[in-house]
Amino acid sequence: MELKRKDLLDIKGLDREEIELILDTAESFKEVTGREIKKVPTLRGKTVVNLFFEPSTRTRTSFEIAAKRLSADVINFSVSGSSVSKGETLLDTARNIEAMRADFIIIRHPASGAPHILARNLRSSVINAGDGLHEHPTQALLDMFTIRERKGKIEGLTVAIIGDIAHSRVARSNIYGLTRMGARVRVAGPPALIPAEVETLGVSVFYDMEEALSGADVIMVLRIQLERQGKNYFPTLREFARLYCLTQERAGHAKGDAMIMHPGPVNRGIEISPEVADGLSSVILEQVTNGVAVRMAVLYLLSGSGEI
Amino acid sequence: MELKRKDLLDIKGLDREEIELILDTAESFKEVTGREIKKVPTLRGKTVVNLFFEPSTRTRTSFEIAAKRLSADVINFSVSGSSVSKGETLLDTARNIEAMRADFIIIRHPASGAPHILARNLRSSVINAGDGLHEHPTQALLDMFTIRERKGKIEGLTVAIIGDIAHSRVARSNIYGLTRMGARVRVAGPPALIPAEVETLGVSVFYDMEEALSGADVIMVLRIQLERQGKNYFPTLREFARLYCLTQERAGHAKGDAMIMHPGPVNRGIEISPEVADGLSSVILEQVTNGVAVRMAVLYLLSGSGEI
Amino acid sequence: MELKRKDLLDIKGLDREEIELILDTAESFKEVTGREIKKVPTLRGKTVVNLFFEPSTRTRTSFEIAAKRLSADVINFSVSGSSVSKGETLLDTARNIEAMRADFIIIRHPASGAPHILARNLRSSVINAGDGLHEHPTQALLDMFTIRERKGKIEGLTVAIIGDIAHSRVARSNIYGLTRMGARVRVAGPPALIPAEVETLGVSVFYDMEEALSGADVIMVLRIQLERQGKNYFPTLREFARLYCLTQERAGHAKGDAMIMHPGPVNRGIEISPEVADGLSSVILEQVTNGVAVRMAVLYLLSGSGEI
Repeated sequence: MELKRKDLLDIKGLDREEIELILDTAESFKEVTGREIKKVPTLRGKTVVNLFFEPSTRTRTSFEIAAKRLSADVINFSVSGSSVSKGETLLDTARNIEAMRADFIIIRHPASGAPHILARNLRSSVINAGDGLHEHPTQALLDMFTIRERKGKIEGLTVAIIGDIAHSRVARSNIYGLTRMGARVRVAGPPALIPAEVETLGVSVFYDMEEALSGADVIMVLRIQLERQGKNYFPTLREFARLYCLTQERAGHAKGDAMIMHPGPVNRGIEISPEVADGLSSVILEQVTNGVAVRMAVLYLLSGSGEI
Repeated sequence: MELKRKDLLDIKGLDREEIELILDTAESFKEVTGREIKKVPTLRGKTVVNLFFEPSTRTRTSFEIAAKRLSADVINFSVSGSSVSKGETLLDTARNIEAMRADFIIIRHPASGAPHILARNLRSSVINAGDGLHEHPTQALLDMFTIRERKGKIEGLTVAIIGDIAHSRVARSNIYGLTRMGARVRVAGPPALIPAEVETLGVSVFYDMEEALSGADVIMVLRIQLERQGKNYFPTLREFARLYCLTQERAGHAKGDAMIMHPGPVNRGIEISPEVADGLSSVILEQVTNGVAVRMAVLYLLSGSGEI
Repeated sequence: MELKRKDLLDIKGLDREEIELILDTAESFKEVTGREIKKVPTLRGKTVVNLFFEPSTRTRTSFEIAAKRLSADVINFSVSGSSVSKGETLLDTARNIEAMRADFIIIRHPASGAPHILARNLRSSVINAGDGLHEHPTQALLDMFTIRERKGKIEGLTVAIIGDIAHSRVARSNIYGLTRMGARVRVAGPPALIPAEVETLGVSVFYDMEEALSGADVIMVLRIQLERQGKNYFPTLREFARLYCLTQERAGHAKGDAMIMHPGPVNRGIEISPEVADGLSSVILEQVTNGVAVRMAVLYLLSGSGEI
């Protein structure tokens, strides 16, 4: 079984069968990561390069653990102190990595579309680990995995995504994925943080938290990028928290068995209260666990290897 | 054989049998690191995360080599550029690492007690690689290993620890360990750098170098933290060196076969003269070699794995 | 088969048989890196430490990939945040790494001769990954490998090295190696960037690009170190590019089948035009591929291991 593609660049381009194949495969790998010896020889002798142009120890670590549990060799290519600072272009850097016979290049980059440029120009498989304001496909896949695992399905569920929709590649990838899988997606946040054209993606827009949460099966809270404060479109943190922080009381407007998600790292008391983040309905740490399994599945399926 | 504990947080909490078990096990691993192929499959499929909040390439490298020689997968989780700088709490960071199914979290942190917080809250085994001014247990274990290897025993030996006792977690861990193993421990240094209550730990205090060294079997020189200069309690370096630098002549006051130790990195000419650091009685590099073996032993014993 | 030496410090000290042995061995390893499973167990249980005192992700990555494909354990010893910043001497740092039973120390250092100091004092094998303005031997070996692979031989070829000869350890190592292998070597660049005594190394000097290129089999373009601008001896970049940038038209003065090399990273439009860097005669990316094979060969031959 394999994905009939060389790269994983975005969720927008995946069809429902592909998403299901990834989620099904991740189930097998989640079983592997629960074993005493959490390792399979699937990618032995393959080289995986983490090419990160933005700091992100969490995502990089998740990919690194996934690759090592598949027995691949992993190289962390740090940008500070690299030839990038010597004026080399992104594509030259990536072509050099390819020339060392990297099988996979996992890239995070502040420019939307950077992974697509690599994918078009390289034989190595390229995996997008977050590009600008565009997409973060493995995050959406692990979110869908977590929803399906908890709820048994995605189709027909109501998912409310809360926060800074406009600047969130996590929101974007989830909107593409969840609507494709048949969920009803709502987005809610301050008007300045809702992109103008977002309804065209098949979601409904709410500016009132309680309305957005009413009857939701899944609440997905986005991380507030603290560094955006002071920009014109952004309210003060206190104002944001007053209106949109997911408190126990607000969460009560969703269904009784609603699950609560957050891509991390959490700003406690800003977008989510500590009680909710640590509460029984929270699956935040389960998302982290599932992230490793989903990334193992993506690496495996793109490699075209025969057996797990 | 295993330690009946999940974590290694300090020496204070270890009894004599536990210390002996670790030292005995380290002997086997020292033999492994002397082989042509310095590797055993003991921790294959286990994940070890180095979570360092203070710079320390030496200790991190020692743990990394130890884990790799046990065939574990090792992840270096660097703090700069991580989500810690995005405002995540220590415990949230650690819970995320645990959620990726880390078997071991090795933590160095400027706050005393940080490893204990993790240990109480996580299922992963936590190893303290130095916390604030509190403890540095694997350093004391490798020091005790080195003493026992040279002297055949620890009980009954006179050990003089010299320097900035007040700010040294190495001194603290060694005081707990050496007194528990039956050594007589002396501490010496400028009055401002000797903690007020230190005799209650079972040591004798000296302000005069020669008295402290007289008849000692072991001289343990502490590293002067150059960054503490200019603080009120700290004399000038020149003044410190004049009174407390371990010179050949001063070392002559100890027993003829006294061994000389230093946890590194050495400030030559400040706390120890180059002749002494590089002399025949110095075991400074042997300490480094033994550090890898002791850390292999700790990882192995905490893992509860059956065979080496 | 093995090199009868413990270290690889420079090309100057290698005889022709040794260079040929390394290039022949690299051929076998290039075959390995083209396999589905790019890994051999040759250095299993060996420890390789990358000790880099200058930023260089590319060279470090090439060595790291080479060592991992030989199944060694690799440790990256970063200088920032290490005990070097705590005032430890280079030799103390290296002795500590040796004491952890490192089989190989790969060092890059801004001071010429630093690797030689380690080699004289340590039992570990030391590989020079670039020292000051002195040598960069594995770069010259991969360059010679690439020439021999393309041209079938090195002897009798005319090689033109273009650019800042005075400050290039790549030029220096190539001059030693290529002349030893029987090539005719020309150097060309602005007068201030040609070292006074360079003819004594057996090369001919040109100040005019077209003369230097006329009839050349190989054009080796050096990287301009942008950070040297503003120094007295250095012309403006615009002036340099006008006179010495390798354009399509200038390359036309060389032989019709001349191959074009660059050690990377490329400054497009400064020392080489994009058309030439990406053209059919360019072997720049092949050099990168061959770098991994050559470094595998060097590690293997220094290890004295029996079989590949």
